[in-house]
Amino acid sequence: MTRLKGFQELKPVNEALRVFLGAIQTKRLKTVSIPLDSALGRVIAEEIVAQNDLPRVDRSAVDGYAVRANDTIDASQFNPITMTITTKNKIGSKETKRIWTGNPTPQGANTAVMLENTRQIKDKVEIWIPLAPGENVSKKGEDIKKRETAVRTGTRLRPQHLGLIAALGITEIRVYEKPKVAILTTGNELVEAGNRSRENQVFDANKHIISALCEELRAEPLDLGIARDNSKDILQKLTSGFTADMIITTGGTSVGAPDLVPETVSKIGKPGIIVHGIAMRPGMPTALAVANGKPIVILSGNPVASMIGFETFARPVICMLLGLKQEESRPSLNAKVTKKITSTLGRRTFARVFVFQQDGEFFAKPISTKGSGAISTMTMSNGYTIIPENREGVENGEKVLVHLFDDVKMVGKECSENW
Amino acid sequence: MTRLKGFQELKPVNEALRVFLGAIQTKRLKTVSIPLDSALGRVIAEEIVAQNDLPRVDRSAVDGYAVRANDTIDASQFNPITMTITTKNKIGSKETKRIWTGNPTPQGANTAVMLENTRQIKDKVEIWIPLAPGENVSKKGEDIKKRETAVRTGTRLRPQHLGLIAALGITEIRVYEKPKVAILTTGNELVEAGNRSRENQVFDANKHIISALCEELRAEPLDLGIARDNSKDILQKLTSGFTADMIITTGGTSVGAPDLVPETVSKIGKPGIIVHGIAMRPGMPTALAVANGKPIVILSGNPVASMIGFETFARPVICMLLGLKQEESRPSLNAKVTKKITSTLGRRTFARVFVFQQDGEFFAKPISTKGSGAISTMTMSNGYTIIPENREGVENGEKVLVHLFDDVKMVGKECSENW
Repeated sequence: MTRLKGFQELKPVNEALRVFLGAIQTKRLKTVSIPLDSALGRVIAEEIVAQNDLPRVDRSAVDGYAVRANDTIDASQFNPITMTITTKNKIGSKETKRIWTGNPTPQGANTAVMLENTRQIKDKVEIWIPLAPGENVSKKGEDIKKRETAVRTGTRLRPQHLGLIAALGITEIRVYEKPKVAILTTGNELVEAGNRSRENQVFDANKHIISALCEELRAEPLDLGIARDNSKDILQKLTSGFTADMIITTGGTSVGAPDLVPETVSKIGKPGIIVHGIAMRPGMPTALAVANGKPIVILSGNPVASMIGFETFARPVICMLLGLKQEESRPSLNAKVTKKITSTLGRRTFARVFVFQQDGEFFAKPISTKGSGAISTMTMSNGYTIIPENREGVENGEKVLVHLFDDVKMVGKECSENW
Repeated sequence: MTRLKGFQELKPVNEALRVFLGAIQTKRLKTVSIPLDSALGRVIAEEIVAQNDLPRVDRSAVDGYAVRANDTIDASQFNPITMTITTKNKIGSKETKRIWTGNPTPQGANTAVMLENTRQIKDKVEIWIPLAPGENVSKKGEDIKKRETAVRTGTRLRPQHLGLIAALGITEIRVYEKPKVAILTTGNELVEAGNRSRENQVFDANKHIISALCEELRAEPLDLGIARDNSKDILQKLTSGFTADMIITTGGTSVGAPDLVPETVSKIGKPGIIVHGIAMRPGMPTALAVANGKPIVILSGNPVASMIGFETFARPVICMLLGLKQEESRPSLNAKVTKKITSTLGRRTFARVFVFQQDGEFFAKPISTKGSGAISTMTMSNGYTIIPENREGVENGEKVLVHLFDDVKMVGKECSENW
């Protein structure tokens, strides 16, 4: 019934993302060598291969005594087996050596008995339990074998990866450079916080949100300032953004307005605008462009729509530039919705929800979808669920997949109980 | 049947944590004022209260025309209602004014019609749909009302919080200082990566893991070096750690060994060791102490055990010192285990699992629980599940709650499909 001025057709999200990613020329950034100690959260650009077995020798996994398993076969508390303590680095039959966790096992020993299963009497030790060969011993190469891959290229480095790399004796590694993301917000009504504002002005929230979303992914935000609603100002500020690896704008794109940003973008480089108008809610006026080989994501000026647009289109590009093997999804979980959520057939709908945990189950409470300008709906929610194009809403009690942008609180568990 | 030397009794995890937290004197750190732009991930130490309505005036939520809802009652595509365009800031009956998203609505208007539901003919506009009062308008104070709380004390600041605070015109905020965590690893066999190592030596992994786990929580790790297995060295290095807010050690604590670290800690301040020996696996030899009012978490030297010990005892303390209202749990989800997991009755068991998503469902594949020294079991897993003390293992197909320390991969979805 209604007519869409400006957009002949709304592109489905998946299709929009596919053509956009396909048009981006730079798929990976340069690599740089950095100290392991500053590599947390970076994406590794080389394969870490073990140069030695880890552990390099058989080591005891317990505090106790190194023994030969064969000697312990009939041991029990009623039938303790007595062994002679030696300090040599080699044990013979019915000999044993005191060892701590991590110590190399002496030659001749193939297992270690825990201290609490023994009793020392002068220079002898009673062993109270039988042991299997290899029990309580970390075998040479058990953790990683020589020439095995420890960490794959394209891995986001977590504490455990840093630990493994350090355990291999490595202190410098090659990672991908952080993508630089230039951010331009547009609008005559916008004022940067810290300035005085008149009643008809609005403090810019988008710059702070988009910038922080980039930081969370370990990309490097670059502030291009606020552009007024005129092509000259937009063009000038956009152009200075080409030192970055990617540009994100907010505002100046819509269904029927002069569409200042898309029009300006289409002038500055080929192929220009690739998609404009997407079958999603919020975020319908989002546009995607490539100019001078660089991706430009043109987001709505509404804070909620711009955040959702970032999640849907900027995040995958940043993940690609970061060198990740796969788009890094937000933590997600299945939760039962506590109220019906409505959506429009043919549009992918992103509904904000508040997830909480109760009795081991997760519930998602829909947060009122009043205007996509209401930032507080994002601070009151901690995630969103995606209702696909072929669904008309979600029923009360249905399970949905929620993508979390804040942590999940345990209902009824208060700090005061403990601290 | 077996006897526990050293530990008369193993304390249950909850009980151990309760008495530990209770003995810590400093519950909160000092606060400091910082620019909003550097506040991502920090914990806010003040209540942010709106000084004005947000938005400060009624604003259009769409691009189109401001009108009086009353004038549109009978509008349809077959019965367009024609209105006269004005540029004044006040509209009368059958008058309308062009507005963009975010513009204040002119006086007299109580709704806005989207451009695509209109047609402009010279200085007139045809309206094709009826509108309700308030439709497509962000009402004054709709986001947040004057004097309402926008962000509560003790909130970890995410992008959306920064956006909301910026929208209120605030550029400086008060946050809690980052807790300083001094880290001491101990062991004669340890060498810092970067040095040459002999076959019987081990490159220290724990320092890197614990340090990065602190960083992830936005605490500030402080390196106290590696102490040899003697009281003098441990005492000297530990003492230098009292400039920090908390101390974490690894190694030198066990069931039957000389227990160098706990013994040294008990000498340096009151009340000293509070718990030693905990009914958990791995991490049984963990000890908890308070000296000079500061918490000391004494972890096992095994990398897996020390990571689990950190999660269980250091993390809640850091969360408390950070000023959070509740312990911040890792992202967690319910997943179906793909293989039976065994555990010991009476011990809380932390089992590493690899969670993956397939057809919208989450599965948790147990990762071999070979020695708690095998760091690779943590890089091959992405989370752990907790089997409570009163359970003996988990059956194949059972649903468990998994706490994630790495992201969840989508099986069968490869980057190459898109980029």
